[in-house]
Amino acid sequence: MKKDGFVSKMQDIKDIIAEIARMTEAELEKSLPAPDPDYPVLCESERYSLFSAGKRIRPVIAVLVCRMLGGSDEAVLPFAAALEMVHCYSLIHDDLPCMDDDDLRRGRPTNHRMFGEAIALLAGDALLTQAFAVAAGNREVGPDRALKAVSLLSERSGGAGMVGGQVMDKLAENGSPGYRTMIGMHSRKTGALIRLAAELGAIAAGVGEDDPRYASVIEYSNCVGLVFQIVDDLLDAEGDSVETGKNTGQDEKDGKTTFLSFMDPDSARQYADELTSKAVASVRGIPGSGPLCELAEMLLKRKK
Amino acid sequence: MKKDGFVSKMQDIKDIIAEIARMTEAELEKSLPAPDPDYPVLCESERYSLFSAGKRIRPVIAVLVCRMLGGSDEAVLPFAAALEMVHCYSLIHDDLPCMDDDDLRRGRPTNHRMFGEAIALLAGDALLTQAFAVAAGNREVGPDRALKAVSLLSERSGGAGMVGGQVMDKLAENGSPGYRTMIGMHSRKTGALIRLAAELGAIAAGVGEDDPRYASVIEYSNCVGLVFQIVDDLLDAEGDSVETGKNTGQDEKDGKTTFLSFMDPDSARQYADELTSKAVASVRGIPGSGPLCELAEMLLKRKK
Repeated sequence: MKKDGFVSKMQDIKDIIAEIARMTEAELEKSLPAPDPDYPVLCESERYSLFSAGKRIRPVIAVLVCRMLGGSDEAVLPFAAALEMVHCYSLIHDDLPCMDDDDLRRGRPTNHRMFGEAIALLAGDALLTQAFAVAAGNREVGPDRALKAVSLLSERSGGAGMVGGQVMDKLAENGSPGYRTMIGMHSRKTGALIRLAAELGAIAAGVGEDDPRYASVIEYSNCVGLVFQIVDDLLDAEGDSVETGKNTGQDEKDGKTTFLSFMDPDSARQYADELTSKAVASVRGIPGSGPLCELAEMLLKRKK
Repeated sequence: MKKDGFVSKMQDIKDIIAEIARMTEAELEKSLPAPDPDYPVLCESERYSLFSAGKRIRPVIAVLVCRMLGGSDEAVLPFAAALEMVHCYSLIHDDLPCMDDDDLRRGRPTNHRMFGEAIALLAGDALLTQAFAVAAGNREVGPDRALKAVSLLSERSGGAGMVGGQVMDKLAENGSPGYRTMIGMHSRKTGALIRLAAELGAIAAGVGEDDPRYASVIEYSNCVGLVFQIVDDLLDAEGDSVETGKNTGQDEKDGKTTFLSFMDPDSARQYADELTSKAVASVRGIPGSGPLCELAEMLLKRKK
């Protein structure tokens, strides 16, 4: 029996994602130093969070962008690993008691619940630090592109990017941020690394800002980043904690400002639909954009 | 009245250190992004710790090594700033309640005492992240040397280096580490960044591992790093808290394993003397080594 077109495409993109996730994990294995016999717990703690069935969305975007733009997997995989290390460190630090104080992540105890706060803090520091060595050590691209990748990795994940978003998130606990502030927070907290994924994919393929396709993949990543956050907020409000692997209803309990503080769930879903269409439209004209388009649709429909 | 040679030399090196500290601070000013109007507190917190009358030992070593090897100040200053940012982040994280839980640093409240734990954690993350952009952005050296600097910065400050030393320090709280373990801890926790200072100074000057002077400055930095730690332990045991700007006697109160757990103060002083002589001997034959030799003597005799 023939599957209909939509289901079959979804199956295809799921297979592609699974393949890229496996490749990223192999790259992460190569990228982590061997545990030091005097303190193996540091490596255990890093690995506990790094290999915990994450969605690997950022590596997937980086690899798909690179492939679409004619680059090789070998050129983008070190950047994909670096992205995932930075993402992973941010989750470990974000879960700490002085931040979100979360006990559960991806259905398992958070890093500090397993290893204690000090080791969790240091495992995050070590992952962030190692990410730069991994990006700088990319031998498949020339030194100029590797340096550009290091600079972007720092800019998007630092005080003007992801870390800035976490600061805004923390400050928002003491007030009621407006819509503009909430968008600014999300564009830094989750948007910056998703955009970075597209940027690193393009750099790995040798495509720079002078190529019009560069702006297209940035537009794609900006839209997908917003969709990702809207769906996160919807899942927290309406999702199932077993399926999502998180405690749901947490945002409301914590009095967090989310998209649902400004629009009802139906309007949020409609907005996410529109953004997904915009993401697809921005890359549709580029040969080989199929998987990126299917990924955008899949991220819109995800249940966890 | 003519000053005697020793006092005059000490005055010279103090002037040189003050000059390099000023240059480093000017470079740090250039290296920090402008505060974001939505969350200026992040920048305030970073600046609070970064501009707090630190000794700037690592930048001083980097600049003096670079000068001795014929490099320009312009080439080494971005690396000096990156070094100081990494050092500063490590102090902020190390002072956190889940680590050393310190209230006082350089005679002032620690970062988390001023800004709260979340902002302190994130300011540390932002400084570490920015350090890599600053090293990668060094336009005075070619891309190959900038990339080499990024890789070394990561290696010495990450899980195999400084962060590893902090893990060992934390693990040591639950036991009595032997002498070998304590040396391994210090060689990572403080030694790695002091060695990195020498390495980055050499890279800035265009001197690589194939040049015999490279091994000489590494030897110098390894000796000086150990002396630095021995003097720290002696000052904690015997120093004055007003002069040192720290709560002294803390190591004994915390049951910490230090050099003084293995030798009496006089033997520790003698060992530090011998290491200083070794440091001086390793670079003495290189033209222009005067300031580095005087620095080693000064670090041996410091009172804070």
